[in-house]
Amino acid sequence: MSELLGVAVLGAGHMGADHIRRLDRGVSGARVAAVADPDTRRAEAAAAGIEGVRVHADVEAALDAPGVGAVLVASPGPAHEEALLAAFARGLPVLCEKPMVPDPEGALRVVEAEARLGRRLAQIGFMRRYDAEYRRLKALLDSGRLGRPLMLHCTHRNVSSPPGFTSAMLVDSSVSHEIDAARWLLGQELTAVTVLRPRSSAAAPQGLIDPQFVLFESEQGALADVEVFVNCGFGYQVRCEAVGESGSARIGEDHGMQVTGGGDTCREVPQDYLVRFADAYDRQVQDWVDATRRGAVTGPSAWDGYAAAAVAEAGVRSLEDGRRATVDLAPRPGPHIA
Amino acid sequence: MSELLGVAVLGAGHMGADHIRRLDRGVSGARVAAVADPDTRRAEAAAAGIEGVRVHADVEAALDAPGVGAVLVASPGPAHEEALLAAFARGLPVLCEKPMVPDPEGALRVVEAEARLGRRLAQIGFMRRYDAEYRRLKALLDSGRLGRPLMLHCTHRNVSSPPGFTSAMLVDSSVSHEIDAARWLLGQELTAVTVLRPRSSAAAPQGLIDPQFVLFESEQGALADVEVFVNCGFGYQVRCEAVGESGSARIGEDHGMQVTGGGDTCREVPQDYLVRFADAYDRQVQDWVDATRRGAVTGPSAWDGYAAAAVAEAGVRSLEDGRRATVDLAPRPGPHIA
Amino acid sequence: MSELLGVAVLGAGHMGADHIRRLDRGVSGARVAAVADPDTRRAEAAAAGIEGVRVHADVEAALDAPGVGAVLVASPGPAHEEALLAAFARGLPVLCEKPMVPDPEGALRVVEAEARLGRRLAQIGFMRRYDAEYRRLKALLDSGRLGRPLMLHCTHRNVSSPPGFTSAMLVDSSVSHEIDAARWLLGQELTAVTVLRPRSSAAAPQGLIDPQFVLFESEQGALADVEVFVNCGFGYQVRCEAVGESGSARIGEDHGMQVTGGGDTCREVPQDYLVRFADAYDRQVQDWVDATRRGAVTGPSAWDGYAAAAVAEAGVRSLEDGRRATVDLAPRPGPHIA
Amino acid sequence: MSELLGVAVLGAGHMGADHIRRLDRGVSGARVAAVADPDTRRAEAAAAGIEGVRVHADVEAALDAPGVGAVLVASPGPAHEEALLAAFARGLPVLCEKPMVPDPEGALRVVEAEARLGRRLAQIGFMRRYDAEYRRLKALLDSGRLGRPLMLHCTHRNVSSPPGFTSAMLVDSSVSHEIDAARWLLGQELTAVTVLRPRSSAAAPQGLIDPQFVLFESEQGALADVEVFVNCGFGYQVRCEAVGESGSARIGEDHGMQVTGGGDTCREVPQDYLVRFADAYDRQVQDWVDATRRGAVTGPSAWDGYAAAAVAEAGVRSLEDGRRATVDLAPRPGPHIA
Repeated sequence: MSELLGVAVLGAGHMGADHIRRLDRGVSGARVAAVADPDTRRAEAAAAGIEGVRVHADVEAALDAPGVGAVLVASPGPAHEEALLAAFARGLPVLCEKPMVPDPEGALRVVEAEARLGRRLAQIGFMRRYDAEYRRLKALLDSGRLGRPLMLHCTHRNVSSPPGFTSAMLVDSSVSHEIDAARWLLGQELTAVTVLRPRSSAAAPQGLIDPQFVLFESEQGALADVEVFVNCGFGYQVRCEAVGESGSARIGEDHGMQVTGGGDTCREVPQDYLVRFADAYDRQVQDWVDATRRGAVTGPSAWDGYAAAAVAEAGVRSLEDGRRATVDLAPRPGPHIA
Repeated sequence: MSELLGVAVLGAGHMGADHIRRLDRGVSGARVAAVADPDTRRAEAAAAGIEGVRVHADVEAALDAPGVGAVLVASPGPAHEEALLAAFARGLPVLCEKPMVPDPEGALRVVEAEARLGRRLAQIGFMRRYDAEYRRLKALLDSGRLGRPLMLHCTHRNVSSPPGFTSAMLVDSSVSHEIDAARWLLGQELTAVTVLRPRSSAAAPQGLIDPQFVLFESEQGALADVEVFVNCGFGYQVRCEAVGESGSARIGEDHGMQVTGGGDTCREVPQDYLVRFADAYDRQVQDWVDATRRGAVTGPSAWDGYAAAAVAEAGVRSLEDGRRATVDLAPRPGPHIA
Repeated sequence: MSELLGVAVLGAGHMGADHIRRLDRGVSGARVAAVADPDTRRAEAAAAGIEGVRVHADVEAALDAPGVGAVLVASPGPAHEEALLAAFARGLPVLCEKPMVPDPEGALRVVEAEARLGRRLAQIGFMRRYDAEYRRLKALLDSGRLGRPLMLHCTHRNVSSPPGFTSAMLVDSSVSHEIDAARWLLGQELTAVTVLRPRSSAAAPQGLIDPQFVLFESEQGALADVEVFVNCGFGYQVRCEAVGESGSARIGEDHGMQVTGGGDTCREVPQDYLVRFADAYDRQVQDWVDATRRGAVTGPSAWDGYAAAAVAEAGVRSLEDGRRATVDLAPRPGPHIA
Repeated sequence: MSELLGVAVLGAGHMGADHIRRLDRGVSGARVAAVADPDTRRAEAAAAGIEGVRVHADVEAALDAPGVGAVLVASPGPAHEEALLAAFARGLPVLCEKPMVPDPEGALRVVEAEARLGRRLAQIGFMRRYDAEYRRLKALLDSGRLGRPLMLHCTHRNVSSPPGFTSAMLVDSSVSHEIDAARWLLGQELTAVTVLRPRSSAAAPQGLIDPQFVLFESEQGALADVEVFVNCGFGYQVRCEAVGESGSARIGEDHGMQVTGGGDTCREVPQDYLVRFADAYDRQVQDWVDATRRGAVTGPSAWDGYAAAAVAEAGVRSLEDGRRATVDLAPRPGPHIA
């Protein structure tokens, strides 16, 4: 394992810059070999101080740069399909930030392209699967100790939404994490979505439907509900309770230091997903690097990326017309959910 | 306040016997003056050892017994309407167990009968309003510290359901507590109900739809969801989280002694509502006795009993046809929700 | 059980007035028959509105008042010995607030006087034995599930100390509750005390040694430590962790409603022992009334009152000279710790 | 920062092998350049699969190996002094596992040797300073929000002690972590120690005094108490509560997934320090590598190692004779506690 894995990072925005820093300093076994961003000044800034990195405006040039053995896609969602197909064409393993491809049709094209290769190259950035508490919950469900899963109750709250955040993005961006988590925890596909609209908060930007309450049905009849509230004001909370036939389990409860003073005992709520899921991001990339160096692809698959896109698309339909929307899922071109 | 309030208790079953014991030994200022039950041996058993109690097979005879100054109705639901009207006819204050009257039409007749009297006589046994944690939550919501309420997330779990418990009873008996609590906490009427059916637990009796997931909409657009699961197997859990525009609050979390041993730190889950809400039952009856002795009626009103019946009836409709059901509420013959 | 127990309450200060209210309205089966206080206006005020109460300046007159069947002693500690002996002389059951008698010699005289009667009449007001969490812990220890007890870690914090509170009173008034709780939980006598003086808080009144850290040794070698801090500023906290050979258990942890807002999730700390132990006070008096009416005496005994006084006296010696002080306990004139 | 830091690891036992794995795979910016262990087969095993490592029986040879730029000392405590002096002689930065040197005299020689160099080279492996919760507590204390610190209440429990663990090792090995943490959190030296011996657990090996209760006094009068119980049977618990003049704070409380089933809600207790403090070990080494690569030394100093040895030595004296022992601290040859 002596040779470092040279990674081309596509996209040098907030998330891309964070991954560049992580590859350079937070994980072992990898190095940043190339950075591509149409805004090359941004790419230069993100790559500053890292020896041996080349900066490109163009994706193909970055993929073809010397020393590149794998790709990390952190560009905007609409650019992902082309990037993934380019990586596939070169046989390069790729870690692609979510959404894999925003529209289900494009996502399916990626699935089919990989299927034609006859081997996996893509891992999708559903990093909650690398969070210690989610992993505990998954292991508990798989152990059968709770009996068969019947319900998941989920909460997803942000302090405030960034400029330009739309009502549909609560479903297809925020809740996409819960979509993947529900599929993974239950080990089942989701078949229908209903989006309810409680009264919107006065703290939400004008016109934004926030909070929303999203209901998912699974193929074996489990129900998953998600409160998504992206202008809750007080912090970043991601919680999940799984209810089975013989017990329940909760993750995401407040923990850490308890401070008593002035009549209350308090625990801090993290303000940001980078605080709550810092370890999960690190572990995700480390696992990807480790697997890639030994020639394996182990994380969430292109199918997971496609299924999430299809469920999110149904959710947006339900948000628009207020009715239950069924999920249209193409036949699976390969083996079952990893 | 020297004279003890003489109470006629109607019904000497499980709940009636518990109230007889409470009036005799758990609260001050009252005594059991009469007990009525068609099964007079059961009534005799419940009244054993209490001086000065007379036992009757007949409701009217019990209400007319000497020393009776108030009535506690703990007979089966279908007998409530007649008992309430008989108490009204005699001008007797009455504490009536829930459901006030199971069908909305009968419940409305009670509301109208009391309205014709021109004064309140009835208090309905929604005892959660007397639970310390629910009162804290109500006070917090009323204080405005959380902003306007947007959502309530509720859990209602029992170890197992008694024989004869039907799918409709999850809505009109179990969830009726959440119906009243939601109306009271929000200070709003509920306008629509949708009942969802996750896969039923293998631990539920054959044919029982359990768990269910019930969604309520309020007149000002708040959403209340309830997981009701009456064969969860592990304990009695009643939890509620209120989410407002600027914060959230949870009640019903596990508390009490923490025991560490064998690799876990555990807190006991109560097995029974009489453990979880013992104080609330005591406080409810004590408050009713105290108010009655000073000539007042302060607790949940006949209107609250009627509204709960109307919402529950809509819920059962939704359970049956799987669709959202609107609540049909008669015009209110008096002032707003107490 | 029809006849109400007539109680003479001695002392109409803060605690006496609270007990008068409790006997009148909070417990069943008893009534206030007489009140004695040298300040008869204070006694009149405390008895106002209760029918049939006579007010006396003199203890003996109150005990001899018609209808008096039992005595509740809530006068200042130095007056307790005379009151107890007067109750014994009349064969009256008595509930005596702690300290039973402040000095061990006087306390022993009470023990011996009761021993000469050949039957118990006195119950001492160590009301923590009636707190639900302490009872859980006691039952757990007695069950053997934790193995033999090795250590107790205790915390006793008040917002602020009342005027005139001395350094010795942290030991012989505040910690006296832990002295009784440790004896009761362990089922053993305490044999030595060491009082340590951490730096005093700037928030403590000038000259008051606060906090203190008190160490007790038991006859079978268990160790109990107590942080006592009566000017902690933020609330009333009473916690206890028992550590046994195979597990540990904690009580007194914060519970109740969780409020999330402004970056923290908080639980309220009670500000006052009347909030934290309200139920324990009620249950103590109800149990005493119930037992007395059936001719029994069941709670903490005069020996418990004496032993607490002897341990507290040793504690004050240790506070004064900074050294470990052994407890001088007279031979027990009767059966073992109840 | 392109050049990797070549580290010579001294000692290839449990801890050394763990550090070798960490340097190879868990942290970035470093590589294992040499491993020394008298048992060279053990060293070969620990270094297997890592390119470019040379294995030595001899410390000096390892330090002189090509590419070595820093040293990590994980050999047994008695070998540390020689290793540290050898590293100093070569001007090599060194991370030395605790205890720095077991006896205070040897520890002081290391302090003086480094003082003669005129610059810091040594960092001592008190890894709790890198634990997220400890860092929060330190930051809170330093912020002044709790007022001046008055007390620390600490718990240190292990499932069981390894073979050969002696009564003195509870103080000078287990509690040495609390000694450093107390000095660091309080920002003060400890001046006296008293070790109390509660009854020993039947689960402790014959002759082992376990648990022990250790009291530390600081120069400004704060008190720190530690329950150390290395055969508690149920898990690994490290907790700390700091009590200040205006509030308190606790760390080390159970967190993670809550599982409800069978009448209890439980949270897992970690079984091992490598689980509880895995992140702290990683962060410690990463920080050391980062600082070393930029030419700095930032962690716990040789003085911290010496002071811990001096306090532990006083603790062992107190354990032996049962009396309070004062700490004999040499004058400090340099600036104050980092």
